[in-house]
Amino acid sequence: MKGNVIYGQSGGPSSVINSSALGVIKESFANSDSIGEVYMMHHGILGCINDDLIKLDPSEEKELDKLSHTAGAFFGNVRYKLQDFKTEKKDYLKILETLKKHDIHYFFYNGGNDSMDTCDKINRFLELYNYPCKVIGIPKTIDNDLECTDHTPGYGTSAKFIANAMEEIDLDNASYPKGRVIICEIMGRHAGWLTAASSLATLSGYGPDLIYVPEVPFEMDDFLNKVKTIYEKKKRCLVAVSEGIVDSYGSFIFQVGKKVDSFGHIRLGGVGQVLANNITDELGLTALPVEFSFLQRACCRISSGQDQKEAEEIGRKAVSLALQGVSGKMICINRLSSKPYKYELTSADLTACANYEKKMPLNMIDVEKSFVTEDFFSYALPLIQGEVEGRFETGLLDVPHIKGYNC
Amino acid sequence: MKGNVIYGQSGGPSSVINSSALGVIKESFANSDSIGEVYMMHHGILGCINDDLIKLDPSEEKELDKLSHTAGAFFGNVRYKLQDFKTEKKDYLKILETLKKHDIHYFFYNGGNDSMDTCDKINRFLELYNYPCKVIGIPKTIDNDLECTDHTPGYGTSAKFIANAMEEIDLDNASYPKGRVIICEIMGRHAGWLTAASSLATLSGYGPDLIYVPEVPFEMDDFLNKVKTIYEKKKRCLVAVSEGIVDSYGSFIFQVGKKVDSFGHIRLGGVGQVLANNITDELGLTALPVEFSFLQRACCRISSGQDQKEAEEIGRKAVSLALQGVSGKMICINRLSSKPYKYELTSADLTACANYEKKMPLNMIDVEKSFVTEDFFSYALPLIQGEVEGRFETGLLDVPHIKGYNC
Repeated sequence: MKGNVIYGQSGGPSSVINSSALGVIKESFANSDSIGEVYMMHHGILGCINDDLIKLDPSEEKELDKLSHTAGAFFGNVRYKLQDFKTEKKDYLKILETLKKHDIHYFFYNGGNDSMDTCDKINRFLELYNYPCKVIGIPKTIDNDLECTDHTPGYGTSAKFIANAMEEIDLDNASYPKGRVIICEIMGRHAGWLTAASSLATLSGYGPDLIYVPEVPFEMDDFLNKVKTIYEKKKRCLVAVSEGIVDSYGSFIFQVGKKVDSFGHIRLGGVGQVLANNITDELGLTALPVEFSFLQRACCRISSGQDQKEAEEIGRKAVSLALQGVSGKMICINRLSSKPYKYELTSADLTACANYEKKMPLNMIDVEKSFVTEDFFSYALPLIQGEVEGRFETGLLDVPHIKGYNC
Repeated sequence: MKGNVIYGQSGGPSSVINSSALGVIKESFANSDSIGEVYMMHHGILGCINDDLIKLDPSEEKELDKLSHTAGAFFGNVRYKLQDFKTEKKDYLKILETLKKHDIHYFFYNGGNDSMDTCDKINRFLELYNYPCKVIGIPKTIDNDLECTDHTPGYGTSAKFIANAMEEIDLDNASYPKGRVIICEIMGRHAGWLTAASSLATLSGYGPDLIYVPEVPFEMDDFLNKVKTIYEKKKRCLVAVSEGIVDSYGSFIFQVGKKVDSFGHIRLGGVGQVLANNITDELGLTALPVEFSFLQRACCRISSGQDQKEAEEIGRKAVSLALQGVSGKMICINRLSSKPYKYELTSADLTACANYEKKMPLNMIDVEKSFVTEDFFSYALPLIQGEVEGRFETGLLDVPHIKGYNC
């Protein structure tokens, strides 16, 4: 079936979502016998609804190659929930109009579990309306919480940023005769994958002493005892904590752990600040919270070569599967072995991938030590390997500049 | 004069202080006809006072080479103010004892303006006591606020981290149909050098819209007007602000700008939070503060090749000058031209370098636009050039492991 391609980005950016875009673009250009034009949705599904598209020109391939090391979602992302098409067809009919207008028969959508839901709904709608279009989901999330795939593109690079940052912060803290207690607050409301990645730093000899993930209820007294013991021994202590850790009642610590100061004012701040306040008040130690904020998902300067490679491969795989007539699937990574690391790309039904959040399995968490197990190291270490080099122009990462479009 | 070498690190770590250590070590090993043993002070001058030294073994040169990309102050730093030796000799006599015991006749001290003061005092004391020892200061500070030198080792790498981080954060923010107002709070209580470096990001097409440094009084109304205008045009706004900006009375904004919430509680947080609160309250826009915290001085993963090279050269130069009989000087960088970038290493009297803080000259600041001028770009761009590659082991920066010492 000859037709044009459309590709959209959705949800929070990751460091390698643009590598998946590049994979789709390159594979589409390479199949010019089957594929005519390549369109990008401007701000994901909104671009498709509003016919706000960016048509790419193969002559700009050199600029487009820079997508592999560009932060953000270069073609614009969106958080937009499509209604059920049985009750609210308006958006769907506009999407159909856009697809027809531009003779689009290959639809690729790149995002997390909400985006797979969007993708699934569009696939079922187009089938119902008998419009010939292959719909494929491309996984993306730094949170690594998608079902059906060993891991998600984006996780490896964020994991690498976090591990390296923890190594550097511990080295900085180790410089002083008396170090501080440093609490690094890491993204992850429900799953601890990113926070757990801080453990990889310890392979350098430096890194976190304690790791707390949302999968295990947090106990303040046990935490304070452990910090005290570590500080007495090392004269410093480094803690990695998921923003979403909860107590045994399932309440977020950043809410229940808040303290009232001597003036009766509630102290503000995230979980890092809450833990730091408790350490200062109960143990009398200098404690500082650190938030990695946007950098943990935008850190293209130290991307994992493996992660970037897989992200691009998955984009290519989506196109080749669609050309084979497959639809309604998400591309998945199936790990064949960890030592040496081997994997294959497979696919799973969009319905099985959409809307679920994959948490860390308990065999990867050492509850007693407030750390991770060897199983986690085996799992995560292959994902941060390889550096991407030689991408700097004048000391800065070089960003694509394509005609008629600025993100 | 044949003798042994001692070297110490002092003040807050920088990303390349260990490169200067490496320069001293390599040049000392290379001059084995004049220099016997090479000692590192453990935690700076405290190590010298307490005879707590690390003796280095030339056979470990391969491990020591890793210092060039190791965060923190690997041999331990300290913040310790030596008293005037006319009134309080105790520390000085212990230092002299250590130097005599280990036959040390070359003393190198690596730090900022306080450390140059320490260095100067020791030099004058040893002269008074007629102990033959050459004393040389090695500049270091990410703040770039040392007199007598065009710039300081450590500044280039932190500037590069900040510029790249601002580029990445702007790309991330640009992904959304409606972006946020993001306020990045950057180190610098009295000088704006680091905050100004955020401007370099704009050479990529992305980066800060507004830059505020402590050298120019901050006006809240003008700031809010500018944010509003930029947001209306771009649907996002990125601000770089020094932690130490002040109002026209010289009071810190993070103190005077604090708002009281609807319960009458003073809102906590640094200047980023204060500005974000004002934007939300006055303009009704979503505003988020970001703090780079430790990463801006510990970010060895994207060090400036130029900065690292100069840091090591300066360490070597200190040794070679001492061997020529020079004492009581700090090594300085004298810029010969910016395009192309050329410099020479010179030296200046320690007394001229100690205790002063060099602020940004006004020709580098565009007060009207709340930005920097072309003069700043010419000054700073050469300092972030060059990448240091191939230093990763298993995805992490490889740290020296030397016998009998762990930092």
